[in-house]
Amino acid sequence: MNKEDLITSWYAEQTKVDASIIPITIGDDMAQVRAGVDGTLLITTDMLLDGVHFDLASCTLEQAGYKAMAASLSDCAAMATVPVCAVGATALPAYFTANELKELHKGTSRASQMFNCPVIGGDITKWRHADGRFAVAITMLSRVSGWHEPVRRSGARPGDIVCVTGTLGGSLLGKHLSFTPRVNEALAITKAAKLNSMMDISDGLSTDLSRICTQSAVGAILEAHQIPQSKAVRKLADPLGSALHDGEDFELLFTLSEDEYRKLPKLETTSITRIGVITEKLGLHIRMSACGLMPLEPQGFDHL
Amino acid sequence: MNKEDLITSWYAEQTKVDASIIPITIGDDMAQVRAGVDGTLLITTDMLLDGVHFDLASCTLEQAGYKAMAASLSDCAAMATVPVCAVGATALPAYFTANELKELHKGTSRASQMFNCPVIGGDITKWRHADGRFAVAITMLSRVSGWHEPVRRSGARPGDIVCVTGTLGGSLLGKHLSFTPRVNEALAITKAAKLNSMMDISDGLSTDLSRICTQSAVGAILEAHQIPQSKAVRKLADPLGSALHDGEDFELLFTLSEDEYRKLPKLETTSITRIGVITEKLGLHIRMSACGLMPLEPQGFDHL
Repeated sequence: MNKEDLITSWYAEQTKVDASIIPITIGDDMAQVRAGVDGTLLITTDMLLDGVHFDLASCTLEQAGYKAMAASLSDCAAMATVPVCAVGATALPAYFTANELKELHKGTSRASQMFNCPVIGGDITKWRHADGRFAVAITMLSRVSGWHEPVRRSGARPGDIVCVTGTLGGSLLGKHLSFTPRVNEALAITKAAKLNSMMDISDGLSTDLSRICTQSAVGAILEAHQIPQSKAVRKLADPLGSALHDGEDFELLFTLSEDEYRKLPKLETTSITRIGVITEKLGLHIRMSACGLMPLEPQGFDHL
Repeated sequence: MNKEDLITSWYAEQTKVDASIIPITIGDDMAQVRAGVDGTLLITTDMLLDGVHFDLASCTLEQAGYKAMAASLSDCAAMATVPVCAVGATALPAYFTANELKELHKGTSRASQMFNCPVIGGDITKWRHADGRFAVAITMLSRVSGWHEPVRRSGARPGDIVCVTGTLGGSLLGKHLSFTPRVNEALAITKAAKLNSMMDISDGLSTDLSRICTQSAVGAILEAHQIPQSKAVRKLADPLGSALHDGEDFELLFTLSEDEYRKLPKLETTSITRIGVITEKLGLHIRMSACGLMPLEPQGFDHL
């Protein structure tokens, strides 16, 4: 388990919640909160930093704003929920003025309008030290779809098929700033088939699949030749390694039974690829044509 | 109008919301979101920065964590709503480890437990540049009390009495790290009397009262000798100026009719003081014993 997951587990252990009010707490892509008798909302928060998640020396504030919203929309997709609204809190470098905020707003609005998810509040603060860089925290609310419960990480079962949308790896060469969150795909998939577990791939396939496995108390075997590699990874030294470990793919990673797998729809926007199977035996493995079944160490992005 | 309020107004103009889903949008201490048929939740987000809202050179991470949660709890109080839960997103300096996160957690937990408002999710990121400082964004959800609608900034009416809880000014001498958010006081006040407008004083009485006046399209006259000055301001060069303009009092500022004023309860924890009146004539004024009625310029904290 990486350092981030260790501290997340520690937080979860410390946190007592009333399950009648908080049906889903720390550990999934979103938490779920009851409101009134018949309704709930889901909530996710993400902090994006200049120099880490984007670099304002080589991208625009419009792109940074788009990415901040899109990353949260991807969390809504990760549980197959419908985005409702967001709030944004920003820490600004000393040189920022209203012009920079308006540029940023163009990007958040672009993502916001794609999924009818308005930004309904926020907070603006400014660093006092000279090297204070831009940070933006987006918190998003979503609602249950009406045809499928929010899909959690903890429901994978031995025998489940492991699937991903799209292609993986090399996102930092461009996709991480321009990806379309898989909200509509997640909703279409869950309308057609019952999923046992899902998340979005934000820290790399190996790390994120190990999270599903840990939370579901199962293992998995990936088929190396089935993992869909992006065009971008062909430019990189280790294409399979990039597809397995690179962060920020923002694709869907999900598991479902063989029967449900047959019900999966053909998506207009992207592919769905079967890449492996969930096993009772714990741990991640990968089958390579050259050397058979090998243990697979999670090597994705660790925020700590 | 200060720069922050100008950009907030601009955001509000740009933002189209469906009022059946988002009954309260940009412009109040919290926005309100419908969930299901009979429920709503309110949401607020705040970013706190090392070197701006606290200084880790002179305070502990426990104090910073407490303040971050307490500031959001104060927003719940500002609309007389009941805190439900929160999520937190952090940007960490390079030297932070799990130990620092646990120290921070002590502070957020202390505030959290005071108001039964668990932190149910979050995000941890780390700066890559050497001078990246600690930032924390807390987003909090609350619910309607059941006996009073969320109190907005825009409902002040000519003839309303202007009241504040506690004493004002000099918060930066210590109170800003240790204040108790006025959640219970706001609930007790609204149980006894119908308020027309309310907010918490975070950027200074003059700035925050001018926000109530602008959003309600009214003016106000303050009585200088009635403004309750904190013990801390007596150490400062301009006690009245500090009480009028200092930020981070985190007291409640509210208006209500003369009839409702008579119903106000006696609070066990703090005082309620009548400090002025809402007028049809726009603009803020202050009555001073020495020189009569004077225009009062908002001089509180402008985050831009």
